[in-house]
Amino acid sequence: MDEITVRKIDKLLNLMVDNATVVVSGEKIARELNVTRSQVWQWVERLRNLGCEIQGVPATGYRLKKMPDLLAPELVRRELGTSSFGKTIHHFLEIDSTNDYATQLAISGGVEGTVVLAEGQKSGRGRMGRQWYSEPLKGIYCSVILRPGLPPAKGPLLTLAAALAVRDAVCRMTDLKMDIRWPNDLMIGGKKFCGILAEMSAEVGRIRFVVMGIGVNVNHTSFPKEISHLATSLKLETGKTWSRIELTGQMLKRLESLCREMEKAGGQGIINRWSEISSFAEHKRVEVHSNGTSFFGETAGLDENGFLRVKRDDGCLETIYSGSIAEANEPVKES
Amino acid sequence: MDEITVRKIDKLLNLMVDNATVVVSGEKIARELNVTRSQVWQWVERLRNLGCEIQGVPATGYRLKKMPDLLAPELVRRELGTSSFGKTIHHFLEIDSTNDYATQLAISGGVEGTVVLAEGQKSGRGRMGRQWYSEPLKGIYCSVILRPGLPPAKGPLLTLAAALAVRDAVCRMTDLKMDIRWPNDLMIGGKKFCGILAEMSAEVGRIRFVVMGIGVNVNHTSFPKEISHLATSLKLETGKTWSRIELTGQMLKRLESLCREMEKAGGQGIINRWSEISSFAEHKRVEVHSNGTSFFGETAGLDENGFLRVKRDDGCLETIYSGSIAEANEPVKES
Repeated sequence: MDEITVRKIDKLLNLMVDNATVVVSGEKIARELNVTRSQVWQWVERLRNLGCEIQGVPATGYRLKKMPDLLAPELVRRELGTSSFGKTIHHFLEIDSTNDYATQLAISGGVEGTVVLAEGQKSGRGRMGRQWYSEPLKGIYCSVILRPGLPPAKGPLLTLAAALAVRDAVCRMTDLKMDIRWPNDLMIGGKKFCGILAEMSAEVGRIRFVVMGIGVNVNHTSFPKEISHLATSLKLETGKTWSRIELTGQMLKRLESLCREMEKAGGQGIINRWSEISSFAEHKRVEVHSNGTSFFGETAGLDENGFLRVKRDDGCLETIYSGSIAEANEPVKES
Repeated sequence: MDEITVRKIDKLLNLMVDNATVVVSGEKIARELNVTRSQVWQWVERLRNLGCEIQGVPATGYRLKKMPDLLAPELVRRELGTSSFGKTIHHFLEIDSTNDYATQLAISGGVEGTVVLAEGQKSGRGRMGRQWYSEPLKGIYCSVILRPGLPPAKGPLLTLAAALAVRDAVCRMTDLKMDIRWPNDLMIGGKKFCGILAEMSAEVGRIRFVVMGIGVNVNHTSFPKEISHLATSLKLETGKTWSRIELTGQMLKRLESLCREMEKAGGQGIINRWSEISSFAEHKRVEVHSNGTSFFGETAGLDENGFLRVKRDDGCLETIYSGSIAEANEPVKES
């Protein structure tokens, strides 16, 4: 499907949601989308395939009878209440990458709290050029524009805050025990269910904007073989299906409140909370992969900017700016 | 002039430079630029107005007899010798902003050392959203793509290196005494003649690219009233006209060598050299403007990332991440 079609089907979905209690005439829909009535009919079919129950009323029009758990802006906004994050939501049934789209919006002046949501990504991206597996309709693929008054050196604080926001939202809904692997992987039982990719545009002393990409595995029932020993989902861990709408709303709400807190009181609160929650904060034996090399050591807390300190086996204290860490001697899990 | 015209005239210039010893037929030029011969004639006039002496040989073609100090890629490259910086140079007679163009190149995969040069900028930009006065043919308006293996926190080191590169290039040509005001303003007698705008795109732990914009006032003989008490040029300070080609080549060469040094040996060398040269490094009474407030204090050296430390009058040691500093009680100079 080309992008225009995707956007028109999305517009149709939102039109159906907005008029959920009434019958909308095919003519009205065709006019608003600027397409033919037979095109409308095809797209209604497409929404039915996605799980929407849409009643066709002969000679009158269409009525939405049941909505699946699609991240329609109107529905997510209901969760958000009075938050300013999510006042503008761009929703896609399918997109290349929510981060790429949000970056374009930010370059064109998109304000803080602008959100891009997609039901699926064709080229979802993760940290360090990796892919992010983005099964349609199962996960949350979300990017938020942030415009903090921070120097780039303090950027890591934002990603710690994003990890805490998702964790708090999941805690509110489930009883799962979670860990945070530095900097921002959310883990259950040693497997990852949420990844965060923060991309920033900055002058040397001043962040212009950060696009905070958040991918959450919610209702996945399986993963490709290559990652199944590393990845999990809330459904796999609980056996239950969870509302992506509720989780998206709650995590955006919480992210906004953590960002506000950081503006007022600085980053120490974030660092303290992250350190309480993460087993990786201190005294954990880890293997560090950074800048093409790797070494073993013991974690020794975060610095004031959110970078991890690791005491190497040779005694040197090193600050980890980039790369990834793993629990040392972590057994490779069988899929 | 539209961008295509600007690019074609530029192509014409480079064609004339490449064939400087021979007569190039108008037909050949028209074919290579894919325009009419009367268009070629108009553009040759335009180059003549810029100072090119171009001989018209009746019924044969055109020959370049004398080149003004235009930053034609072939000429700049001669200064560069074997350097890898400047292997690709995009040259414009006029551009909106060299940084904007270089950013687009970097997004599309432009390699480290790719250079954008312009004879003039319509919307030259400086730090913190300010304008950069870009009088055509008088200054150097240059942007370089860097792809250092550094975390964003270490970005300031690059801008210190860029200031050192320009300073070294100017030192090689003139006897001027220069100062560097943190982070990277090059000053002569309290007035600024070079400004640097580093813009980066990064993941939280990893710089993707930096566009290093360098503006140098070379042969300006005057400045607009609003900035004439703040700005100067090499010509105003020495009474002489300087080769922009030579200066551009030398500063790119030096920037490359400082970047290589930093890759191998880290940033301490840059910090040491900057601190030797700048009167702002230590024990200088300054006024700091940062994040909408200002305060007085005394400078107390750079930290390991190149940020300036200032001891406030209330005794607190503060690290300055963004904003600007000025010598305290600096007399306002009359224009």
